[in-house]
Amino acid sequence: MKIPSIPSLNIQAAEAARQRQMELTKPAGSLGRLEKLSADLAGMTGQARPKLQRKAVIVMAADHGVALEGVSAYPAEVTRQMVLNFLNGGAAINVLTRQANARVVVVDIGVASEFEAAEGLVRRKVMPGTRNMAAGPAMTRAEAEQAVQTGMGVVSEEIERGLDLVATGDMGIGNTSPSSAIVSVITGLTVQQVTGRGTGVDDEGLARKTAIIEQAIRTNRPDPADAMDVLSKVGGLEIAGLAGVILGAAARRVPVVIDGFISGAAALIAAGLEPQVKNYMIAAHQSVEIGHRAVLSHLGLQPLLDFEMRLGEGTGSALAFHILEAACRILDEMATFSEAGVSGR
Amino acid sequence: MKIPSIPSLNIQAAEAARQRQMELTKPAGSLGRLEKLSADLAGMTGQARPKLQRKAVIVMAADHGVALEGVSAYPAEVTRQMVLNFLNGGAAINVLTRQANARVVVVDIGVASEFEAAEGLVRRKVMPGTRNMAAGPAMTRAEAEQAVQTGMGVVSEEIERGLDLVATGDMGIGNTSPSSAIVSVITGLTVQQVTGRGTGVDDEGLARKTAIIEQAIRTNRPDPADAMDVLSKVGGLEIAGLAGVILGAAARRVPVVIDGFISGAAALIAAGLEPQVKNYMIAAHQSVEIGHRAVLSHLGLQPLLDFEMRLGEGTGSALAFHILEAACRILDEMATFSEAGVSGR
Repeated sequence: MKIPSIPSLNIQAAEAARQRQMELTKPAGSLGRLEKLSADLAGMTGQARPKLQRKAVIVMAADHGVALEGVSAYPAEVTRQMVLNFLNGGAAINVLTRQANARVVVVDIGVASEFEAAEGLVRRKVMPGTRNMAAGPAMTRAEAEQAVQTGMGVVSEEIERGLDLVATGDMGIGNTSPSSAIVSVITGLTVQQVTGRGTGVDDEGLARKTAIIEQAIRTNRPDPADAMDVLSKVGGLEIAGLAGVILGAAARRVPVVIDGFISGAAALIAAGLEPQVKNYMIAAHQSVEIGHRAVLSHLGLQPLLDFEMRLGEGTGSALAFHILEAACRILDEMATFSEAGVSGR
Repeated sequence: MKIPSIPSLNIQAAEAARQRQMELTKPAGSLGRLEKLSADLAGMTGQARPKLQRKAVIVMAADHGVALEGVSAYPAEVTRQMVLNFLNGGAAINVLTRQANARVVVVDIGVASEFEAAEGLVRRKVMPGTRNMAAGPAMTRAEAEQAVQTGMGVVSEEIERGLDLVATGDMGIGNTSPSSAIVSVITGLTVQQVTGRGTGVDDEGLARKTAIIEQAIRTNRPDPADAMDVLSKVGGLEIAGLAGVILGAAARRVPVVIDGFISGAAALIAAGLEPQVKNYMIAAHQSVEIGHRAVLSHLGLQPLLDFEMRLGEGTGSALAFHILEAACRILDEMATFSEAGVSGR
């Protein structure tokens, strides 16, 4: 498949933002990371004073064959039920995007059952869930590529609708298992080092989950240097779709807020397919899922928030939207020393 | 002076919030600190599902006699100029409160020059700046008490106007010096351990600032066990006013978001006057000002955000408003498992 080329950051726009931050009515540097974020966003968007008015969280939903192995605390039908909850506005991501004045785009990229057409639901099922990675490849390479393409297509449509900032979100019972598998293969850490309790398995469940992920890697022998190979053998459809969202957004200079652990696994895949994409990533938060630190470190990202969250859905991203918007509003709306008649040092 | 009595936290409301968090459509605990914050806010407000619609940042402005000693990187007239900037809507706190849908209340509690009446300005000058604490007490005990009373009065008026959440903010060239003095005296740490660069003095300036603060403490011998003594001898008018805001809000069950270092010094004074007030404090962020860690540790508070900020004005608080509102919206607006028909574990 053709991976889109990712434009270089716009150095002039970033420098103009840094320069303006020096002229605003505050000691230079006193807004710390907000100032740096505003320049980063300027570099990504190519706008010296970027505005983040049109925001979306793209929530990719899919099922996982490996859920049959009892790797999750919840039954697999919860994927479907939560998609319906998203469409009814009752989930955490609905609450947080309403607050942040952002839209939620829910994508069925691989849920095991069918959905009626519904407002806010994008139906692009590649297949009704992956196969059990403990027994063989989760997807063929062609299926994985189709799921990545699907993500690129969805974000392109959203960009056509108007989009200044996009975030990744996920729903899929069992999806911390493929995420841990991807993180282990790509970072070189052991499965145990990057596997946590997901939605909340107990000690016995964690031991079983770790053993299943180890078995999946042993069985499939994914090639760490070939991100599409890793994705297809031990990945998931929502992870593939989110990798496509990240690539598609960066190709069009739309900054991407990476949510937690599952989104982080998707970001590793995207960066494996095209390393330049890392320039357009912003890490929303530090998840409590233990492999997440390794993900952020591998990508060179510093999380904005740390509230000991582990829900997914894009919830960390929706919170981060407020901070990113604040950074851009400061840059755009504050008065300069000369405009306000305030004395300098 | 009479310190208001602070009501106990409402245990029933906090427990009801915790119970509801267990029933919402997410793994219990998966929203981490947001869940705990929602229960804390329920306990403070006495409402099982608190709403944070009406929010204000109260910015107390004052001048400091000690500024004559060259402890700041900026000239003293900047206090006045920045008050005018606040009233014109051009400062960082204006931008961030507009975004957070909160109001800014600017209080002249001790600026060295007079202001015309203006929309958004509360004129309650106790005196035109403190005296130079390096040469003698910054205020008499009566003046300090009057400034604390003024803060209590201002927040009472705001509560009458409708107020679900309040935050502290400060403006006063030179005010990190009295703040460091207060923090040193109350925590028992040396002046050097709690004195930073404020708006940005250089190495020489920092050495001079530290020496002046040490001299102020040596000259005035404030009694660490008597917070009003500390406040009057080495404090500031805006610090006193903010201590009053904190006490007055807590007395009426309004949660108080404590901004950065200067607000932290005010919080230490408030807690010295009435330890129960700590139950109503929420720390907005970790400032880069080096004494701030000692403040939060002394108060037993964990900051919400860390963006390496050191501006004051209430800017950290205004950012924290989004997080606190998110915590309450999650609690109030999410669907329960039974409402949404989602299967449990």
